[in-house]
Amino acid sequence: MSHKWLIKNGTIAVMDDARPVVNGYMLVEGDTITYIGEERPEGAEGAEIFDGAGLLFLPGLVNTHGHAAMSLLRGYGDDLALQVWLQDKMWPMEAKFTGSDVYWGTSLSVLEMLKGGTTTFLDMYDHMDQVAKVVEESGIRAVLMRGAIGFCSEDEQRQKLNEAVGFARDWHGKADGRITTMLSPHSPYTCAPNFFEKFVQAAHDLNLPLHTHMSETKTEVEQNVSDYGMRPVQHLLNMGMFSRPSLVAHAVHLNDEEIEILAAHQVGVSHNPGSNLKLASGVARVPELLKAGVTVSLGTDGAASNNNLDMFEEIRLAALIHKGVSGDPTAVPALQALKMGTEYGAKSVFLQDTGKLAQGMKADFIALNTEQAHFLPRTDYISHAVYSAGAKDVEHVWVNGKQVIKNGAALTIDEEKVRYEAQAAYEGLLSR
Amino acid sequence: MSHKWLIKNGTIAVMDDARPVVNGYMLVEGDTITYIGEERPEGAEGAEIFDGAGLLFLPGLVNTHGHAAMSLLRGYGDDLALQVWLQDKMWPMEAKFTGSDVYWGTSLSVLEMLKGGTTTFLDMYDHMDQVAKVVEESGIRAVLMRGAIGFCSEDEQRQKLNEAVGFARDWHGKADGRITTMLSPHSPYTCAPNFFEKFVQAAHDLNLPLHTHMSETKTEVEQNVSDYGMRPVQHLLNMGMFSRPSLVAHAVHLNDEEIEILAAHQVGVSHNPGSNLKLASGVARVPELLKAGVTVSLGTDGAASNNNLDMFEEIRLAALIHKGVSGDPTAVPALQALKMGTEYGAKSVFLQDTGKLAQGMKADFIALNTEQAHFLPRTDYISHAVYSAGAKDVEHVWVNGKQVIKNGAALTIDEEKVRYEAQAAYEGLLSR
Repeated sequence: MSHKWLIKNGTIAVMDDARPVVNGYMLVEGDTITYIGEERPEGAEGAEIFDGAGLLFLPGLVNTHGHAAMSLLRGYGDDLALQVWLQDKMWPMEAKFTGSDVYWGTSLSVLEMLKGGTTTFLDMYDHMDQVAKVVEESGIRAVLMRGAIGFCSEDEQRQKLNEAVGFARDWHGKADGRITTMLSPHSPYTCAPNFFEKFVQAAHDLNLPLHTHMSETKTEVEQNVSDYGMRPVQHLLNMGMFSRPSLVAHAVHLNDEEIEILAAHQVGVSHNPGSNLKLASGVARVPELLKAGVTVSLGTDGAASNNNLDMFEEIRLAALIHKGVSGDPTAVPALQALKMGTEYGAKSVFLQDTGKLAQGMKADFIALNTEQAHFLPRTDYISHAVYSAGAKDVEHVWVNGKQVIKNGAALTIDEEKVRYEAQAAYEGLLSR
Repeated sequence: MSHKWLIKNGTIAVMDDARPVVNGYMLVEGDTITYIGEERPEGAEGAEIFDGAGLLFLPGLVNTHGHAAMSLLRGYGDDLALQVWLQDKMWPMEAKFTGSDVYWGTSLSVLEMLKGGTTTFLDMYDHMDQVAKVVEESGIRAVLMRGAIGFCSEDEQRQKLNEAVGFARDWHGKADGRITTMLSPHSPYTCAPNFFEKFVQAAHDLNLPLHTHMSETKTEVEQNVSDYGMRPVQHLLNMGMFSRPSLVAHAVHLNDEEIEILAAHQVGVSHNPGSNLKLASGVARVPELLKAGVTVSLGTDGAASNNNLDMFEEIRLAALIHKGVSGDPTAVPALQALKMGTEYGAKSVFLQDTGKLAQGMKADFIALNTEQAHFLPRTDYISHAVYSAGAKDVEHVWVNGKQVIKNGAALTIDEEKVRYEAQAAYEGLLSR
């Protein structure tokens, strides 16, 4: 018989517009939430009782764009012009990454994400078998894909495509269903059309969604116009990407017509406010995207351009910067920002049954300690979660019905070993 | 004989451009830092030894603009147009504040600030004797002033001025020197010139600096032009404010000429990025202010418009938003942002001997736990402090040579009582 949890005395963020929070019980059977309500449920016999007094329960946060292994380069290059940062700092170091580096860098990121309340992350990188291994072991949920840059020979391109396809096929649905896969040509500016289109075809063949970087910088948009006579959205449309379920990362520089195309084709946008600000890429048109009906979710991007993986910060930035830049204090209200980090995130990475606390959903949830000054007075827990909370308020985390963080400590990860090995991996990169 | 502390094995952020961090020792005698260096100092006999291994020592953070008691209204009104927020939410509730409400609201804020590494805060509010009492008891350092709004009879104006002057005179230098005072007409749009000028005169008489809100919103600037035929900076200059050492809060909407005037008169600017974004006031011209030589520091403003008092967030916002908005990734680099939250903060509130870890400075310092994923790898501790850290990384806090936070817990404040009484005060406000 599967394990049951009965949460009692909890403040549970169900995030319905009419009733954002329920005070009471949540029953979890196996990997699924089977009840949320004010009354003690039937069928709770034999459940492990968990006293939720003083805790705010939220859906696990969903990070829809990142490169987890890049945490090995956190603080290695900051406050630099983008091209200097990439060419002098990131790319030479990343070229040295081995499978082991990816394993420890990803472990460091997964440790940080789980402790900070992120229960699902999207990862686009290389050595993805190592990433999958970390996901399998740690108990986190992930949407994984081998990112492919086309600046190489046709033979190498073929090899990358085969690797991406093989990984996507072999790992989809693995780790008790916690791993799903997508295909991801890196971007229209690093993949020529004939290479990009092979990924689109493979996505059709495997019935998988697609993910790519798009319109992160103004320069990149201008380059696209110069190379292909059109802006990136039209270019991706022409290459057939949007004939598959798709998620694009960044989408900072969009005109009105592009927003319409994204909306019409139900293309999701992963908004990465921290990274976009730090790299001076600009401020995405999030209020307009939301108004047009586009599903906008949130991503941290890699830790080298953020520099942490605290999704509460991305949620708060999403709620703050669009008010400040538009001049409209009602832009991206708290509840919408929180949905961007949870419900819309799950939808963006094509997980139908996560991202919300409701009957029938997967039991991915987190508990924040509200017995702290910055959660008082008890006016509005959704507001507090968005405008006041941070990663370190997270006390407990469950993924797929299993507890993975308890009293702020990891149950599935040897924290000290991960910290030691990640530092050693970084020192190894410096010495090679 | 005064108490001595000898920190050993510390990573100490002295923040010199050439050498941001020293690994080694810090000696504190009484309220003063008497040594920082790699070698064990002379004169450490009898010192209490503190092992700083795994800790990053920073100067205590300095919050240069706020209204501490407003934490009682955290989350009471969000995502509203400014005038609705003020007129329907804040003002009716604030009108009900008693001395006791101010005491518990300020206590809640001081608890949050100390635990988050803020060792000095500026406070402009009413019932300032209650604020001073909290400062005296808690061990924090503060720069206090009775804010005065002139929308009242001449009698009431006189009473407010007398109160402000009396408070400033009576409390300056109190609490072992931890309290200093300033005078603060609320703003040029709430104080007519004849009232404002009385504060300027009083500041001359008492030899005190001045503080006011200035150019927070575009509307307010337009109003100033319409009422007085000039923009706020010229108006304040004409009223004589800048003949005294001065600090203005917000300064979001400035033209080039105004920046020159502020620089020429050495007027400090308290930049409040979180509050400015949340209230949709706009983005201050911080890179231009810094370039012109203006001392720019950071403030949280009240918790009702932030909604927390985490100065690490203000530091990070200052480092991030000006890059994103200007398109220049080198704008406001990490070390400069950290100085805005420490050294420039102390200078802004006219404290000559705090805000920096150096021999002869007051012993206001904090220790962050770096044995966590988001502080790895050990590439650049200044970068990690700015781009990755948060309030809850703070493990230990000292103010004026006395430890006030130990292992994340307050030594001088009854945390549970403050949380209980703050909630009760809020409920009292609702019921009256």
